[in-house]
Amino acid sequence: MNRILVIHGPNLNLLGQREVNVYGQGTLENINRLIEEEAQRLGVKVEIMQSNHEGDIIDSIHSARTNYDAIVINPGAFTHYSIAIRDAIKAVEIPTVEVHLSNIHAREEFRTKSVTAPVCVGQISGFGGDSYILGLNAVVLHCSAK
Amino acid sequence: MNRILVIHGPNLNLLGQREVNVYGQGTLENINRLIEEEAQRLGVKVEIMQSNHEGDIIDSIHSARTNYDAIVINPGAFTHYSIAIRDAIKAVEIPTVEVHLSNIHAREEFRTKSVTAPVCVGQISGFGGDSYILGLNAVVLHCSAK
Amino acid sequence: MNRILVIHGPNLNLLGQREVNVYGQGTLENINRLIEEEAQRLGVKVEIMQSNHEGDIIDSIHSARTNYDAIVINPGAFTHYSIAIRDAIKAVEIPTVEVHLSNIHAREEFRTKSVTAPVCVGQISGFGGDSYILGLNAVVLHCSAK
Amino acid sequence: MNRILVIHGPNLNLLGQREVNVYGQGTLENINRLIEEEAQRLGVKVEIMQSNHEGDIIDSIHSARTNYDAIVINPGAFTHYSIAIRDAIKAVEIPTVEVHLSNIHAREEFRTKSVTAPVCVGQISGFGGDSYILGLNAVVLHCSAK
Amino acid sequence: MNRILVIHGPNLNLLGQREVNVYGQGTLENINRLIEEEAQRLGVKVEIMQSNHEGDIIDSIHSARTNYDAIVINPGAFTHYSIAIRDAIKAVEIPTVEVHLSNIHAREEFRTKSVTAPVCVGQISGFGGDSYILGLNAVVLHCSAK
Amino acid sequence: MNRILVIHGPNLNLLGQREVNVYGQGTLENINRLIEEEAQRLGVKVEIMQSNHEGDIIDSIHSARTNYDAIVINPGAFTHYSIAIRDAIKAVEIPTVEVHLSNIHAREEFRTKSVTAPVCVGQISGFGGDSYILGLNAVVLHCSAK
Amino acid sequence: MNRILVIHGPNLNLLGQREVNVYGQGTLENINRLIEEEAQRLGVKVEIMQSNHEGDIIDSIHSARTNYDAIVINPGAFTHYSIAIRDAIKAVEIPTVEVHLSNIHAREEFRTKSVTAPVCVGQISGFGGDSYILGLNAVVLHCSAK
Amino acid sequence: MNRILVIHGPNLNLLGQREVNVYGQGTLENINRLIEEEAQRLGVKVEIMQSNHEGDIIDSIHSARTNYDAIVINPGAFTHYSIAIRDAIKAVEIPTVEVHLSNIHAREEFRTKSVTAPVCVGQISGFGGDSYILGLNAVVLHCSAK
Amino acid sequence: MNRILVIHGPNLNLLGQREVNVYGQGTLENINRLIEEEAQRLGVKVEIMQSNHEGDIIDSIHSARTNYDAIVINPGAFTHYSIAIRDAIKAVEIPTVEVHLSNIHAREEFRTKSVTAPVCVGQISGFGGDSYILGLNAVVLHCSAK
Amino acid sequence: MNRILVIHGPNLNLLGQREVNVYGQGTLENINRLIEEEAQRLGVKVEIMQSNHEGDIIDSIHSARTNYDAIVINPGAFTHYSIAIRDAIKAVEIPTVEVHLSNIHAREEFRTKSVTAPVCVGQISGFGGDSYILGLNAVVLHCSAK
Amino acid sequence: MNRILVIHGPNLNLLGQREVNVYGQGTLENINRLIEEEAQRLGVKVEIMQSNHEGDIIDSIHSARTNYDAIVINPGAFTHYSIAIRDAIKAVEIPTVEVHLSNIHAREEFRTKSVTAPVCVGQISGFGGDSYILGLNAVVLHCSAK
Amino acid sequence: MNRILVIHGPNLNLLGQREVNVYGQGTLENINRLIEEEAQRLGVKVEIMQSNHEGDIIDSIHSARTNYDAIVINPGAFTHYSIAIRDAIKAVEIPTVEVHLSNIHAREEFRTKSVTAPVCVGQISGFGGDSYILGLNAVVLHCSAK
Repeated sequence: MNRILVIHGPNLNLLGQREVNVYGQGTLENINRLIEEEAQRLGVKVEIMQSNHEGDIIDSIHSARTNYDAIVINPGAFTHYSIAIRDAIKAVEIPTVEVHLSNIHAREEFRTKSVTAPVCVGQISGFGGDSYILGLNAVVLHCSAK
Repeated sequence: MNRILVIHGPNLNLLGQREVNVYGQGTLENINRLIEEEAQRLGVKVEIMQSNHEGDIIDSIHSARTNYDAIVINPGAFTHYSIAIRDAIKAVEIPTVEVHLSNIHAREEFRTKSVTAPVCVGQISGFGGDSYILGLNAVVLHCSAK
Repeated sequence: MNRILVIHGPNLNLLGQREVNVYGQGTLENINRLIEEEAQRLGVKVEIMQSNHEGDIIDSIHSARTNYDAIVINPGAFTHYSIAIRDAIKAVEIPTVEVHLSNIHAREEFRTKSVTAPVCVGQISGFGGDSYILGLNAVVLHCSAK
Repeated sequence: MNRILVIHGPNLNLLGQREVNVYGQGTLENINRLIEEEAQRLGVKVEIMQSNHEGDIIDSIHSARTNYDAIVINPGAFTHYSIAIRDAIKAVEIPTVEVHLSNIHAREEFRTKSVTAPVCVGQISGFGGDSYILGLNAVVLHCSAK
Repeated sequence: MNRILVIHGPNLNLLGQREVNVYGQGTLENINRLIEEEAQRLGVKVEIMQSNHEGDIIDSIHSARTNYDAIVINPGAFTHYSIAIRDAIKAVEIPTVEVHLSNIHAREEFRTKSVTAPVCVGQISGFGGDSYILGLNAVVLHCSAK
Repeated sequence: MNRILVIHGPNLNLLGQREVNVYGQGTLENINRLIEEEAQRLGVKVEIMQSNHEGDIIDSIHSARTNYDAIVINPGAFTHYSIAIRDAIKAVEIPTVEVHLSNIHAREEFRTKSVTAPVCVGQISGFGGDSYILGLNAVVLHCSAK
Repeated sequence: MNRILVIHGPNLNLLGQREVNVYGQGTLENINRLIEEEAQRLGVKVEIMQSNHEGDIIDSIHSARTNYDAIVINPGAFTHYSIAIRDAIKAVEIPTVEVHLSNIHAREEFRTKSVTAPVCVGQISGFGGDSYILGLNAVVLHCSAK
Repeated sequence: MNRILVIHGPNLNLLGQREVNVYGQGTLENINRLIEEEAQRLGVKVEIMQSNHEGDIIDSIHSARTNYDAIVINPGAFTHYSIAIRDAIKAVEIPTVEVHLSNIHAREEFRTKSVTAPVCVGQISGFGGDSYILGLNAVVLHCSAK
Repeated sequence: MNRILVIHGPNLNLLGQREVNVYGQGTLENINRLIEEEAQRLGVKVEIMQSNHEGDIIDSIHSARTNYDAIVINPGAFTHYSIAIRDAIKAVEIPTVEVHLSNIHAREEFRTKSVTAPVCVGQISGFGGDSYILGLNAVVLHCSAK
Repeated sequence: MNRILVIHGPNLNLLGQREVNVYGQGTLENINRLIEEEAQRLGVKVEIMQSNHEGDIIDSIHSARTNYDAIVINPGAFTHYSIAIRDAIKAVEIPTVEVHLSNIHAREEFRTKSVTAPVCVGQISGFGGDSYILGLNAVVLHCSAK
Repeated sequence: MNRILVIHGPNLNLLGQREVNVYGQGTLENINRLIEEEAQRLGVKVEIMQSNHEGDIIDSIHSARTNYDAIVINPGAFTHYSIAIRDAIKAVEIPTVEVHLSNIHAREEFRTKSVTAPVCVGQISGFGGDSYILGLNAVVLHCSAK
Repeated sequence: MNRILVIHGPNLNLLGQREVNVYGQGTLENINRLIEEEAQRLGVKVEIMQSNHEGDIIDSIHSARTNYDAIVINPGAFTHYSIAIRDAIKAVEIPTVEVHLSNIHAREEFRTKSVTAPVCVGQISGFGGDSYILGLNAVVLHCSAK
């Protein structure tokens, strides 16, 4: 267990600048800093990417096949319809954890359904930026348990 | 109220060349000319972009946050499934008007549902190229009313 | 293109007196004045009627067959279930534009479905009293385009 | 943040003895030991209860109002239909985290729906016994963030 | 009938490397070789492209309007939600055949629905790499029959 | 069996003037003449009314309780949603036959459902003006069979 | 709290004359007498109206805005589809109680859904003519509790 | 208009012997006699067949292509699922009238849906054996109207 | 009519302490006092029980068979799924009235459906603690009417 | 095959005293006597329990893991929603047969669905008290067949 | 109670030769032998028929009206759509028991629904060939209980 | 790979004589000739049957178990509801390819669902008579690939 790819999906680049009552006030930079600190604490290396392009996220997941041991992904809105990202996660066969800032079960009906979660190890949702921290820990625990 | 971003979604570049019985004979160039004339008449500046890429449209919407006062968007087929574009519109908090060339309520069942309209100021559909002209006026009226 | 019939559906007589957070503060009289001014600007004559009775609205639509060139209608709550009004609009074969004060796509699920829109030229929703102004322009543009 | 109530729902007492391919080989005693160790590490006190009785779980949640600062709950099968437990969680207004051993999004359709998650801070599912460890951390992070 | 555009949708670049029990062991290179041999046998030229980007696939379909006589497409996961690709196929009015490696009717419920098939000449699914060979023959037969 | 009330629902006054491809070219006057001739042939008296007002139709049905032996009704669009007319028919407990000019089973999905038919003796649909002639005969046969 | 408007919806004028096994044997006059006696006992004035016309009921509700302190309404069949009456109740912002003679939850599926109840203070159903007596008391209690 | 094929679907051979409260007491022989008398009165020849075998009914419909001018069919239970009979009726392009003894709209939910009616001229249901008499008249009127 | 059993379902023991904006500020003790006063006024004896245990509520309903003349029940969350309580109410064949503090028709979709109401005499919902007072009166009126 | 646990679910204690037209006139004691006689005839020991408490039934099923070779269960109303009992049956991995007194497929729609049957060996429904006798035989045959 | 007709539906002739993991290894001959032995033990005569033809099965059921006292039927796949067989069973009014080899509640969703069970005395499913043995006993018990 | 059974389902005998705009002008004889020529080219023997009887098709499929190596079937309308044919295909465990003349995904909603396709190797639809040619090739390729 050496390297973890962290993927931020669409619109997450605006974090801290939009709908702060839903997503909190931290910016993506704040969250990335926390992720890197936690990675250091856990003794793993992380690579972080963000994209609003479904295709770029699929390409990144594919690249993870040979370069990473695990993925932590917040697919954002793609969670609810991108079967292509689902297939990508399934295809690369790397342990993947899905995280969400907000509690998707407490929002609009269409957000309670995840098409990507069924091919992940598990899902963590509702803890703001801490969802990523918990996701990192989850994937490390998962891999060490094997 | 100075600048309005006009976004044409997927396949609209083929306008006038495809399914003229549904979408009319005018090309996108014709429509863009009309948009620019109306903008001049209304005393606003418009920037026009077209893309078949969901990610590019999201990036454009994001860029509007600092550069535009309003958006007029025809999301094309993305209207019916792109929750990512919906989230982008919601995030930038700029008044946005959704327009459609054809009357989407009079076509296939799946086209009557818009995932983007709930986060827009309003929706105009069914008036061919004039939907954009009406959209420009709508957004100008909306902003002046505040 | 000489005369346009404008129809206000049920409860619109209370406008400005009820739920101002949803429908705005203007009264129906305010809106009617704006409609008449815009009609004058467009060089068309308008006749305006309001009724809480489905049957009266159907009778009015029928009368339009011989007396009007176009209809602008806000069917209010009838939008969502009056197939009889839908059939009336279809029967008289006069260009009809459906307008709504509020953005019906952003409200209760049952308001997102219009049974009348499929037989109209198009639908405009979400711009308060300006929806009527846009509707008048839409129908004039539509008729002049033929 | 001093005391956390951990609730195990129905059938969890059989853990390690049933369907090990779904739920893993650890017994409930193993998990409880891990929970207590992690609580010690985090500097919080935990109380653990298990019951196959919906009413007992509701009573426990009620008792938490005055005795605990937070709840970590695995409602087991009650997740999918016990609106009474949902109302109990909502009523006591103590931060609650829902955890699941298995990834409920990857199982039978009826297990993907949680009636309790919408009133919790968040949900963690799919990490075996580690879901509880992550849940403890989540609730501690959540409370310290306030 | 001179040139056929063959489009491979998302994740097909990983063919032979992922889920071999579902998709078989042949790589995309193997399949492309078979396609080219069959094209030679049939006396047609083929151009082959693969992309994980919905927008790129739409652009390719558009380019086919002037450069190709027919399209054979495996839209992959986009089959089930990309109304934008559907509209692109409809717009270019070139005979298009949809192919699938696996029998989509025998998999998850959500894979049995194709949003793109209704605007294609026909659909072939379930024959592994041979689906493409059959697709080439189908489109050639279709065009020669006109 | 002496008198039969024949009720024409909304928009039927426009018959022969609207959508002649769906409803035929005969006017309501033509149909009424045929009804009266057939009534004479059958030795029954008929009273005919038409209204676009749901309330008027309910009032007429109520009046039938003491003045008529049977009802032949074409509820038009009210067929599909007027539970109030359904209740009126049920309440007066007079044999009622529902008729339709067009074959409602062959049109839009929402027209295949009748809320009034379950409380009628039977339904006749698809024979143009002859549906009324058949309806008269049906109700006469029905009453003589008792 | 001085005056209460009591509204009887469609077909209630036939009470005691139709379907006595469902609605009981009392006539509307009997019920009205009971209502007036109870009003006297409660020290309030009541005005009672009945109509089979949706539009008349809406007009009456509107008139209540300035003339009544509360409404007790049995919308009859309109309960299940008249969004126009719902909007009228919502618009006048007078405390309104919905009553039903029969237990609508124990009848046909389509009668268990009320479109008007969500904008009322509450709903009372199943107690025959006593539903009105309970409704009067409910609205008096409600108003005195404010 | 010379010959009409009358088809009785499954279980109709038991008529008068089963569920007399639903289907009446007349036997199939009674009904056939009435049909023949009415045919004589109308000056047409009828051929009558009954079968419990879907395939036999399809074969009979096919044979009608060259031997009959019209069909009157009571598809019995096949009404609700035999798309094969629907396709047969559509294929032979002979005017066909669907009849039912009982009012199918007043029975179990699954009987209100007819898969065959959309390809027939019309449907008559609810008049016992008279439904056939009305059906004969309907088809004769329909053919003479052409 | 001598004794009435009043049953409070799950979480009602927290009344006045939880979600006061939904359920009001009165405690269960306040409500019980009001119930007892009203009972005295009506000349009936009441026994009151509260439980968070579905089984206890069923047992109490069973005990009512021999000890009580009527039941007033607020099944709380069990309203929406406890078919077992429904069966218990049906089995004991004692007049039962269902009451709710809040207007369940104005809340989440899943709360608008009651599985217990169809076997009760009627339902009263939306009047806070007064719903019980109205329920007592309703059941007394119901029993005296027999 | 030595001992069988027989479980009677909620409300079955009232057997013979409630709804005798649905469930028959035999009391639970009668049925238990028949069960014991049949057990004796089959050479197996039976233990019988009844409870209205879901939790007690789960506890009993758990206890069966070490004390019984098979279970015959009539889950009563829990059949339709208790996923917790389903999980208990699945967990203990003892052959279990589900029985019902009435034919659940011939009653209300919601009773035709069993959440527990999928994890049982099989289901027997509709034979009154004999369903238990058949259930005992079924489970004995099942175990001897292994 | 003298003679029982046993009906095997479609594909059961292949028993023991197909899908042995679902249906077991016994052939239809094995099962028929067991049926005959059990019939002898019970003192009844059995006639056994198998057919892949829906019409033949209906004809057989009809013939049972005069020749048999009861029917035991495994309708195979017809269970899920043959309303014609359902109507045949209902029509002949002979006690009928539905049996299935496999537990239909534990298979594909579409197999959990039986259109024939609601008109049978009861249903037995999941016990392999023993389902028939139990079915024979069930029908004998049922008839002797009358 | 020596012999292939080709099965034409219901109504295909009318090919070229019915609905030529949907199914093309070729007769079944034309198609059979093409099938035989292609078989000769491929070096396989074909046997062809057509039936309008579901039972005959099932019998034929059963017979294929010992006499054929593969099946090419166009189940016609049976595609959409004959679970019995589905079970027959599954039972005989011979590679089966489903073919359709028209593109079933582009027609009525109910034709897009195939109950037989999930148990076939694959499905080919939309290529007129060529669908059979492609089907033959598909099954030959499939068998040679094993």
